[in-house]
Amino acid sequence: MNGAESLVRTLISGGVGACFTNPGTSEMHIVAALDRVPEMRCVLGLFEGVVTGAADGYARMAGKPACTLLHLGPGLANGLANLHNAYRAQVPIINVVGQHAIFHLRHDAPLTSDIEAIARPYSKWLRTTKSASDVGRDAAEAVLAAGTVPGKIATLIIPADASWSEGGVTADVPTHPVASVPSFETIERASVMLRSGLRTALLLAGSALYGKGLMTAGRIADATGAKLLAPYPFTRLERGAGMPRVERIPYIFEQAVEQLREFRQLILVGARAPVSYFAHPERGSTPTPEECELYALASEEENCAGALEALATSLSLRRGQPSLEEAERPAAPHGEITPLALATAVASVLPENAIVVDESMTSGRGLMEATKGAPPHDWLANTGGSIGIAMPLAVGAAVACPDRRVLCLSADGSGMYTAQALWTMAREGLNITTVIFANHAYGVLKREFSGLGIGKPGPRAAALFDLGHPNLDWVSIGKGMGVPSARASSVDEFTKTLREGFESEGPTLVEVGV
Amino acid sequence: MNGAESLVRTLISGGVGACFTNPGTSEMHIVAALDRVPEMRCVLGLFEGVVTGAADGYARMAGKPACTLLHLGPGLANGLANLHNAYRAQVPIINVVGQHAIFHLRHDAPLTSDIEAIARPYSKWLRTTKSASDVGRDAAEAVLAAGTVPGKIATLIIPADASWSEGGVTADVPTHPVASVPSFETIERASVMLRSGLRTALLLAGSALYGKGLMTAGRIADATGAKLLAPYPFTRLERGAGMPRVERIPYIFEQAVEQLREFRQLILVGARAPVSYFAHPERGSTPTPEECELYALASEEENCAGALEALATSLSLRRGQPSLEEAERPAAPHGEITPLALATAVASVLPENAIVVDESMTSGRGLMEATKGAPPHDWLANTGGSIGIAMPLAVGAAVACPDRRVLCLSADGSGMYTAQALWTMAREGLNITTVIFANHAYGVLKREFSGLGIGKPGPRAAALFDLGHPNLDWVSIGKGMGVPSARASSVDEFTKTLREGFESEGPTLVEVGV
Repeated sequence: MNGAESLVRTLISGGVGACFTNPGTSEMHIVAALDRVPEMRCVLGLFEGVVTGAADGYARMAGKPACTLLHLGPGLANGLANLHNAYRAQVPIINVVGQHAIFHLRHDAPLTSDIEAIARPYSKWLRTTKSASDVGRDAAEAVLAAGTVPGKIATLIIPADASWSEGGVTADVPTHPVASVPSFETIERASVMLRSGLRTALLLAGSALYGKGLMTAGRIADATGAKLLAPYPFTRLERGAGMPRVERIPYIFEQAVEQLREFRQLILVGARAPVSYFAHPERGSTPTPEECELYALASEEENCAGALEALATSLSLRRGQPSLEEAERPAAPHGEITPLALATAVASVLPENAIVVDESMTSGRGLMEATKGAPPHDWLANTGGSIGIAMPLAVGAAVACPDRRVLCLSADGSGMYTAQALWTMAREGLNITTVIFANHAYGVLKREFSGLGIGKPGPRAAALFDLGHPNLDWVSIGKGMGVPSARASSVDEFTKTLREGFESEGPTLVEVGV
Repeated sequence: MNGAESLVRTLISGGVGACFTNPGTSEMHIVAALDRVPEMRCVLGLFEGVVTGAADGYARMAGKPACTLLHLGPGLANGLANLHNAYRAQVPIINVVGQHAIFHLRHDAPLTSDIEAIARPYSKWLRTTKSASDVGRDAAEAVLAAGTVPGKIATLIIPADASWSEGGVTADVPTHPVASVPSFETIERASVMLRSGLRTALLLAGSALYGKGLMTAGRIADATGAKLLAPYPFTRLERGAGMPRVERIPYIFEQAVEQLREFRQLILVGARAPVSYFAHPERGSTPTPEECELYALASEEENCAGALEALATSLSLRRGQPSLEEAERPAAPHGEITPLALATAVASVLPENAIVVDESMTSGRGLMEATKGAPPHDWLANTGGSIGIAMPLAVGAAVACPDRRVLCLSADGSGMYTAQALWTMAREGLNITTVIFANHAYGVLKREFSGLGIGKPGPRAAALFDLGHPNLDWVSIGKGMGVPSARASSVDEFTKTLREGFESEGPTLVEVGV
């Protein structure tokens, strides 16, 4: 067995069953090994930002890592921005990056670069394999590192001669250590805070935002009157009818200040203290009121769901259902195209058990409110603020959950970053309905500029925020990549096209002007 | 004056007149400063790979740096792959990268990252500005560093508070040091080699491949019988009728071995020793015969054109024209679509003084032979092997040379990396004719796989080399970004569409199946 085959067999034995990739010459022996190990699902992306974003989406929904297979330093570099988002999402990803054969490196061939340096900013585990016999062991360690709570990006660099040489050994992946529950004292302190009568919120992240963790949080909120909050950049939130209600902290700083104003205690469950995305010359960076105590119930490294369970026990809560969001599906809207009408349209047709990927930016800020009583669904957000995540994330989520419908909400500006993902949707026949909110602008920048108190943008600044001249034609772009695409020029048409998308096999796209 | 304005004014005073950008919130004060300093030409790219590739193309043709303006670590990360190519091209680029305000960094907001670490692999000069009063001085040093031979990537990271605070000072950019000519002994030794009667080639790079440097090389070749060679990954080559003939070393290793077999002396003029792009399990990395002496006449840091001039003097060559490529424009071809027919078609209509950007990959290997007698033109190649450079490079070249026609030759696979450049071509009305050679495959990978001696690719490997299922429709993609686009289904149609493209105002695209 050569090193390449030991890599693939070790990954499979460690439960890594999907490989998102754009390989090159230095990875050819790994590609050949993928041919010999049919258990690995291979998905081609035409740009590495698609590849890494898809690995993120897969991990969010599968609850385990996929691997990427990337071509040398530049292939990894192209994937970095979505690795930034994945790093912030704390999802597990194993990057396998090809390197030149070691004897070739001294010649400094054109594609040579310092791959470790490129990987380091976003890799919490990083290694260059030394030889074929090490590949299996290194891959096993990468799987272990990636999957240890909180999820990490592990990058394994494999020189071509380590891939092609004989001597590969499949390695066993050790069992992941169980994330610990906070100490008794830590739990008790939160319990006291919740019984203090002070206005309190729980800021949830990680495993506190879905499944059992979220249900426990709901019971705690019910019993204590605490509010459940999620950070604006959350990884995965289960919501809709039959789920506890969680309020998201708004992106807009002034709105976050307003939302948090009432609280005197903020209990962090795997979450960080709220912070504004950007600094501003004339205000602070944190929206939480000064008189509010921040208290960390569970850190990122700890078991958030377990911490909530222990807290429920400490509060002597009975088992049972918390109060849950009621089913409230709005009727299909009519009339003018407005953000509210579009949000209502989405809520009126969202399929049960859908996965919503949301990078609708300024155009979609009413969507969560409108869909709060829609059939239960998962919501995936942009976690790191680097735009161009939605379509790749949707690809990964759809590969992880072939039986569920994916709704991908993208702004036009962010969509242009990684639109190549549309081709992968078509190639793989993924059930993804992509909505492009076309405001022909970087709307967020127009807003931010006007908030700086430096007057209106002049013509040159305005041109840098403008995506018109010419307008992007997403129907053409979508069709160009093999995705049936349409433009909705009325709310009724939008609703109808969405519904047809949800009922059809394979991907569709609808562009709507806002 | 705030720091941002001192940045822009210093860049302008240092001769930096073009800014390729995709800014974000942390760069808003720099955008506002661009509004106040109309001398800077601002060009928006919808993805940062377009931005950095365009800065590369601009530098190759303008002979001086442009700046980029990028949004935080992820914006820079998206531009890295084309910075890899620019690094290898040894062109000057000044990256201006926004950073959070310093007081905001400790909160680790979602878009926070280690920007210096992301910049380091490809930045030969790197600094984070400390305060508004330092911005001008730092910008001046960046301009100096970037433009010192050989061209370098200089990255200046500017915290938002350094941009928005008052106290900015415009700085003078010192004169760039003149690149030195090699020592008398070094020149004499080359002179002796050229008179030895041994079969000799000059491998040219940098300023030896165009203008006066190339003409001098031609005179030396004439007088001594030496052959002129260019590396496969060259930055800029002036060629066509009326220029000395330079042979490019082929990408395919066996062909390079064959080409170099006859030589016993290889004189490097700013070039590195030839090396194969990739290692192979059963062969060496260098195509030059063992018995061939490699001799460095001029290093990358030295004045290549000056070295050739000194060598000509040492050889006592008379002034005058070397023998030059004869004008030989083929007639428009007819019949079947073949690579040769397409190359002939290009040669039959290539406008005088065109700039050809070539990333045609496997589909375009006959193009240079076919166009050797076409009207004089510049040829720009992919220097670092990271695909996705052609359209961005074309944007930059067209901005640098508004009076020249740009022919952008792209494969379909590489084109998908940075197709967003098409929109910038439309927005700026650039005279670029883009050809997409659509073989619906990563042709180079199919070839490389079959050369490894590991049999034929199985279905899973074959799928990773296949860009069909579905085919990309470049006519739709081009139209979607506002570029008039057509598909040529015959050679005659291809020739006609190309000619119309060259005669029209603004960009066009033609897809041709190969």
